[in-house]
Amino acid sequence: MLNNPTFEKLCDHAREVSLIQSIQELLEWDERVMLPPAGGSFRAEQVTFLSGQNHQRKTDPRLGEWLQELAKSPLASDPHSIEGATIRQLQREYDKKRKVPQELVEALTRESILGQQSWVEARKNDDFSSFQPALQKIVDLKRQQAHAIGFEDVPYDALLDDFEPDNRTANISQILAELRQALVPLVAEIAQSGRLPNRQIVRRSFPIDKQAAFGQSAAAQIGFDFKRGRLDVTHHPFCSGMGPGDCRITTRYDEHFFPTAFFGILHEAGHGIYEQGLRTEYFGLPPGQFVSLGIHESQSRMWENLVGRSRAFWECFWPQAQTIFPTALGDVTLDDFYFAINDVHASLIRVEADEATYNLHIIIRFELEQALINQDLEVADLPTAWNDKYREYLGIEPPNNADGVLQDIHWGSAAIGYFPTYSLGNLYASQFFEAAIKELGNLEDSFRVGDFASLRDWLNTNIHQVGQCYSAAELVEKVSGSPLTPTPLVNHLQDKYRKLYELG
Amino acid sequence: MLNNPTFEKLCDHAREVSLIQSIQELLEWDERVMLPPAGGSFRAEQVTFLSGQNHQRKTDPRLGEWLQELAKSPLASDPHSIEGATIRQLQREYDKKRKVPQELVEALTRESILGQQSWVEARKNDDFSSFQPALQKIVDLKRQQAHAIGFEDVPYDALLDDFEPDNRTANISQILAELRQALVPLVAEIAQSGRLPNRQIVRRSFPIDKQAAFGQSAAAQIGFDFKRGRLDVTHHPFCSGMGPGDCRITTRYDEHFFPTAFFGILHEAGHGIYEQGLRTEYFGLPPGQFVSLGIHESQSRMWENLVGRSRAFWECFWPQAQTIFPTALGDVTLDDFYFAINDVHASLIRVEADEATYNLHIIIRFELEQALINQDLEVADLPTAWNDKYREYLGIEPPNNADGVLQDIHWGSAAIGYFPTYSLGNLYASQFFEAAIKELGNLEDSFRVGDFASLRDWLNTNIHQVGQCYSAAELVEKVSGSPLTPTPLVNHLQDKYRKLYELG
Repeated sequence: MLNNPTFEKLCDHAREVSLIQSIQELLEWDERVMLPPAGGSFRAEQVTFLSGQNHQRKTDPRLGEWLQELAKSPLASDPHSIEGATIRQLQREYDKKRKVPQELVEALTRESILGQQSWVEARKNDDFSSFQPALQKIVDLKRQQAHAIGFEDVPYDALLDDFEPDNRTANISQILAELRQALVPLVAEIAQSGRLPNRQIVRRSFPIDKQAAFGQSAAAQIGFDFKRGRLDVTHHPFCSGMGPGDCRITTRYDEHFFPTAFFGILHEAGHGIYEQGLRTEYFGLPPGQFVSLGIHESQSRMWENLVGRSRAFWECFWPQAQTIFPTALGDVTLDDFYFAINDVHASLIRVEADEATYNLHIIIRFELEQALINQDLEVADLPTAWNDKYREYLGIEPPNNADGVLQDIHWGSAAIGYFPTYSLGNLYASQFFEAAIKELGNLEDSFRVGDFASLRDWLNTNIHQVGQCYSAAELVEKVSGSPLTPTPLVNHLQDKYRKLYELG
Repeated sequence: MLNNPTFEKLCDHAREVSLIQSIQELLEWDERVMLPPAGGSFRAEQVTFLSGQNHQRKTDPRLGEWLQELAKSPLASDPHSIEGATIRQLQREYDKKRKVPQELVEALTRESILGQQSWVEARKNDDFSSFQPALQKIVDLKRQQAHAIGFEDVPYDALLDDFEPDNRTANISQILAELRQALVPLVAEIAQSGRLPNRQIVRRSFPIDKQAAFGQSAAAQIGFDFKRGRLDVTHHPFCSGMGPGDCRITTRYDEHFFPTAFFGILHEAGHGIYEQGLRTEYFGLPPGQFVSLGIHESQSRMWENLVGRSRAFWECFWPQAQTIFPTALGDVTLDDFYFAINDVHASLIRVEADEATYNLHIIIRFELEQALINQDLEVADLPTAWNDKYREYLGIEPPNNADGVLQDIHWGSAAIGYFPTYSLGNLYASQFFEAAIKELGNLEDSFRVGDFASLRDWLNTNIHQVGQCYSAAELVEKVSGSPLTPTPLVNHLQDKYRKLYELG
């Protein structure tokens, strides 16, 4: 980097913020994986202390002075250069932090904790009305937050920006509407095809220690580096990139349902490969950080679905799978197994949904949370609206709210604007994958012989190493040559499932 | 506490220091138990950041002002009250911190890291001369540190104070000399007794998962609370009290040597029971903190040896042990097992030594490190002096320096003054145990029926809950009615081993 003392101060400051953040991430990982039950309240004090330390630094008025000075410097002239991206992204974060009053930040923190607690109880008791007041408070505060931050089009834009910066509701709505129009008939055709996989195959007994060994070996083979990471067990799987040389993924095991852990591990390993692929020399600075949650999700979805649920992948892993699980898989053909792990059917629970119906679950949430924030829907009417949409898009209706509107933790924890990033992940993944194939040729041949390095290296060069030097939208265009479009994902799903379900 | 705003500020400050310290302890626990290999250097940055944050706070000049004001207040009048002890101990720490110049602190930190690295290599290559320059630097710096802190009698006093505050070299020397005079002939008599346990019994195959289950169950039974703690695996076992509700112990397993893990777990659980017994309402303040390393070690040694290696303990656990390890212990009598776990013989390695010879290993180190610091011994002459003392006190001579003077990490990591706390732990343990028996009656009858709560509750009331309201010496006198003396430990060892080895 050029020798500019103000820029150096800015970078040192950002690195210190990230260092504190990395400690907080370890505390949170430990809380979910290791912490003894009685340690919870003291852990909250530790995390609160570190958050406070970071908040002080992030709103330090010196930051504003440095950024003002640097805005005029030649370092800022190329927005995609290391220096330009650093200045642009730190300016962006500083401006946003300053717009939200401290009381609102604190109220949101408090209500999101209370909201989660209320949600846990409400879900357990299948009682939406007990959750309604907490959710109402959260929706009101999120509306306030949206207005404090400001927006050009709709308030939801301001919230979306926390998870998918630089994108717009209108843009995502249009793409997801096109996707919905393609998916609803496809899912219906599949349901009417009369073809059914033997679902029982993946529901036999798969001993957990063997699942762990197989999953870990597959994660290593696609490129998750265990010298720089680890795999543990939690109820809610996640990936935490805690700093250079330390990225941790988790999973959960179900002895009688093979896909949970195996595809869960591939998914988290995909997130992990992105984290491990960031440039450590820019740790703590935007060029060494992931672009958006949607881009992050594109990496996990690619390894989980486009790679892990492909026939070529299983041509490579099938002999190993049969050796490790002789009782469950000894008498199974690869074709039957491949069909069983690609079983498409409308279901109630998002996290258990298949590759084709998954996006319909997301679209429902995206439409509902927009309506809540933009004041087109009252919180009290949410359960009915939920059930209407499930009937319309998936042809099924939740028998209760616990398996309906209460199934996800997001709204209770004030994460409104998060859901669309899951579908954006699927869309980005297909568009990137298509670009990779265009450049690398037929990737299935590589997977078939256990070569995952070609794809991984391509992702590393084109996505991981870019960090935040490009926004998500810019990155898609840079990598694929066109703006985000649903076509690659629709094509992938059509090709795959028309063949599998023998549709006309 | 009385309503004194200055005292409140002092306490808030101390609690914040402890909160940061607790985060650092988690980072260090994680480093030893969980951290992926490549995460080491970033972890060092995280720990350095927190140390710096704490150093700033510990030398904050406002502390000096508050303490000066409080020294004159009625709160300071009773040195054993919560307020008096808090003021006294924080004053003590502040004064000491201010005496050591920052350059010396930094030099010691640096040389202790380099010293450890040099020690690892030297031990591996059995090459003392390669370690000599690093050790020389450390000894020089520790002498400087002693002179910076100041002392009345000998420089070693100032170093001892870091680990066993308020004690003196002369006092410990006299007690350990008396102990040595009793132990050297006892160990010789045992060697000449002609009696030998069947050592092979504890060297059979003890499957590691069963050792883990048995050890964890025994730790829980003596009172380590797993709702507020956990047990993991490390190469070098330790206990870390990380704050209210979170105390973690570790162990290592040797399939073919039962005592390593089992007594190791009881030892660490003893430390853990002390940590879990501290008053959480005074977390971060001296009344809620352990007194000294010697007192800490008294708790681990008591549960490991006075309880765990007693015949009564095994009368309780023997049926369970035979059920869990049918192959190894099915044909063994309780008497033979009891003898095998109390096998006394002169050996080279401290950490593998039995209850009787262990203190001789410590006395050797204590005498040598005093001589180094008080300039009665040159670093170059250390190996010869080491071997001379092993011949004199234990009747054996190390065949090489790796198993001799290079066996412990302490000196290379600048922990000079630490060793005597191990023997102090044994001495305190016996004196406390004698006092407990005087008050509670025959504890063996309790152990026999699995009642460990009487002893634990007694320790809790008399030691754990006292925190730092009394110094170690004051605590011993308060609990046992007399100053520290070697008699209880000597009596315990004489009684136990004269019976076991059928000595006259």
